[in-house]
Amino acid sequence: MKILAIDTSTSFATIAVAVENQVVAELLLNTNRTLSARLIPEIERVIATAGLGISDIDLFASSIGPGSFTGIRGGVATIQGLALATGKPCVGFSSLEMLAMNFSLSSTLICPMLDARKSEVYAALYNLSSQAPIPLISDGVFSPEDILNEIAAATEEPVIFLGDGAVRYHDIISNRLASRARFPNYPLNHPRPSNAVTLALNTYLSEKSVMPSELLPIYLRASDAEINHNKRLTSAGYQFVNEPS
Amino acid sequence: MKILAIDTSTSFATIAVAVENQVVAELLLNTNRTLSARLIPEIERVIATAGLGISDIDLFASSIGPGSFTGIRGGVATIQGLALATGKPCVGFSSLEMLAMNFSLSSTLICPMLDARKSEVYAALYNLSSQAPIPLISDGVFSPEDILNEIAAATEEPVIFLGDGAVRYHDIISNRLASRARFPNYPLNHPRPSNAVTLALNTYLSEKSVMPSELLPIYLRASDAEINHNKRLTSAGYQFVNEPS
Repeated sequence: MKILAIDTSTSFATIAVAVENQVVAELLLNTNRTLSARLIPEIERVIATAGLGISDIDLFASSIGPGSFTGIRGGVATIQGLALATGKPCVGFSSLEMLAMNFSLSSTLICPMLDARKSEVYAALYNLSSQAPIPLISDGVFSPEDILNEIAAATEEPVIFLGDGAVRYHDIISNRLASRARFPNYPLNHPRPSNAVTLALNTYLSEKSVMPSELLPIYLRASDAEINHNKRLTSAGYQFVNEPS
Repeated sequence: MKILAIDTSTSFATIAVAVENQVVAELLLNTNRTLSARLIPEIERVIATAGLGISDIDLFASSIGPGSFTGIRGGVATIQGLALATGKPCVGFSSLEMLAMNFSLSSTLICPMLDARKSEVYAALYNLSSQAPIPLISDGVFSPEDILNEIAAATEEPVIFLGDGAVRYHDIISNRLASRARFPNYPLNHPRPSNAVTLALNTYLSEKSVMPSELLPIYLRASDAEINHNKRLTSAGYQFVNEPS
């Protein structure tokens, strides 16, 4: 089985191609704000580097968040398009689980933490000591203080913090958890492209592949555009039936 | 400081570019036997993906082995050429230490193991629980049985085995160490491109950068060509003053 798996939920996009469980090409690139124009040519290039063409791919996969709204929307839409055009299945996976997998087999608990702006983080707590990561705190959006309180309530063990949220809130984490908080070398704060392949394959083997139309981003909170739209409607006297809880 | 760091010691070549300790682009590609023609264009492409040119790079780095003779020679020669032409410093680092760093901060001991053919492996044993990896068994060439005996004598703890040597000799390792032997998900058997950047920077900061002419491969054993050459000379009656010990 040939797999293309991407992650565009942070400012570091990843693209990986695997054949029969073995990664043959992977790319990580700092996208800043230029991803949309670069994603398709970079995908084509990585597939070509792997010695393949788009039509050779049997499974398309994308992280579905949480993370950058624009990034995830672009990544998911690209994978939807590729799967739809080729008639191949697609799967989605968690960006936080992918990041946590930088520490596969770790006997230390892992807190992947992405900067969600507005003094919040997307975070979770995983046990990766066995082959399948076990979430102890599910993916969510938190203030740094709240996730640290949840972690302190959940465990007295050391925890490795990684991701751009862990870099940004390093001092708050250190102050709260003291020597129990561990921080990796800088490159380990970026997702590893090939982790996406492992997650894609595991999701597919769990029979959780979906139709392209069912591959949906998980934003965990409303976008600024939605919040502003809702504010305008509310101030105009509208009530929401399906208001996010 | 802008760093280009490559590893060509296995069938998976890696190229990574970092700016101020932060990786901005990294590529892993399965090279099989086609590396020599692809290395320079792929390096140019990754540097361009990072938004840089060759002349922007301040430090050039390559793994110096152990591993594939042809791969290492090509990688080292390329980095020597780039450093010489630009007048910038270069550094070398161990391919096994780079591979072990897939498990940075692991509290489990790590045995990186590369297939050296001829029923041998290049292997070592590292403790990566602190930021700087500590070698417990230094990089060497061993029969699978010999390295497992050395590991059994050195520790009673679990050990994570990774690399193409660990994949090839999985059953021998499992039989010898039983449940103490751990094996990662497949992609973790490949070196992570950005680990090379971390090693390059650490080597540079330890003031161990070298002149291009001093960047020398560490093969750990003689190549087939040397062995055959020596056999021919010996059978012709020559004595070696500097015969490898």
